[in-house]
Amino acid sequence: MQEAAKDIAGYMFGAAEIPVSPVSLQDLERLKISVGFTEEDARYLAIAGEVLADRTKVIVAHWRSGIIASIPHLARHSRDLDGQALPDYLARSNRRFEQWILDTCLRPYDQDWLNYQQEIAVRHTSVKKNRTDQVQSTPYIPLRDIIAFITVMNDTIKPHLAAKGHAVNEVEKMHKAWRSSMQLQIALFAQPYADRALSLDEW
Amino acid sequence: MQEAAKDIAGYMFGAAEIPVSPVSLQDLERLKISVGFTEEDARYLAIAGEVLADRTKVIVAHWRSGIIASIPHLARHSRDLDGQALPDYLARSNRRFEQWILDTCLRPYDQDWLNYQQEIAVRHTSVKKNRTDQVQSTPYIPLRDIIAFITVMNDTIKPHLAAKGHAVNEVEKMHKAWRSSMQLQIALFAQPYADRALSLDEW
Repeated sequence: MQEAAKDIAGYMFGAAEIPVSPVSLQDLERLKISVGFTEEDARYLAIAGEVLADRTKVIVAHWRSGIIASIPHLARHSRDLDGQALPDYLARSNRRFEQWILDTCLRPYDQDWLNYQQEIAVRHTSVKKNRTDQVQSTPYIPLRDIIAFITVMNDTIKPHLAAKGHAVNEVEKMHKAWRSSMQLQIALFAQPYADRALSLDEW
Repeated sequence: MQEAAKDIAGYMFGAAEIPVSPVSLQDLERLKISVGFTEEDARYLAIAGEVLADRTKVIVAHWRSGIIASIPHLARHSRDLDGQALPDYLARSNRRFEQWILDTCLRPYDQDWLNYQQEIAVRHTSVKKNRTDQVQSTPYIPLRDIIAFITVMNDTIKPHLAAKGHAVNEVEKMHKAWRSSMQLQIALFAQPYADRALSLDEW
């Protein structure tokens, strides 16, 4: 996985340039408890990773071209400020999106993962969106749209989890693990939206 | 539903004192699109509301006494600042929590609902937590814990949706509708955490 990932433009998991997350491993442990994310979930995510490994391109194409492209207030975030397509930007971010599916399933949720979650989170905001790919697009993605789109990802991933013939209860456990991870990640992705505030309740 | 709700301390759905939400009905329509919340979901939530109507006490007791009470970083939000129980506060907020299940399923998602969503959201933050019930507890609930706990609510609601003998595919549709509503509501609940910021990306 790491070898393949080296070819992905702008994908910097584990790189020295990625800052340490302001979210601590203890924060993460508490979040896992709040979300009910268990060791069993980690095991079933690993199985899901094997199932999804050769399907990430199809999944991301469905999300991006099949769903997001038809919703103007979401599609604009991969377009230029006049609403014109930015094919290179889309292609690069799609490759990272595909890799994120694998990282979600196959990486340990350790300090490197936590640091890179924060990097992804910051790349949604005006602090860093567009900079990795040197494009002029919307300055940030509203937090509400990141939160909301999780439902679509959760619903559309399920048939893919079932595509390699696992028993129904195994698919259910993979799906439960996936949903728990999504909710955990949304909580992490919300952090920079609150963190830059002066008068805000602690994220 | 409205008649019964009058007896719930601090429950003020539709009351003149509830401010108009800064989130517009157009924002809500866009959010519904982002989340994939459809007319079919609204219909299946109504069915879910009938199924859950006589079970809300059991469900909230499970969430609060069965799960939250055993997680110190969540339980503290219903306790005093020394960690001692506040039984009246808990009882009052449990009654509102029960009513929220019904409102989720049975209310139209209109301006009154949007206004009250914002009221609930603000009651999680330091602007208004504790004030409705005149208690001294934690000043706010971190956004991350609100986001994370949704997974537990989604997973534990499912057997209740199946408890009145509906067909498996009906239960699945109720559950999909419930999950979509939860994600929609989380996006709304996130708004005041961002809104009070000075330098923050638009929620």
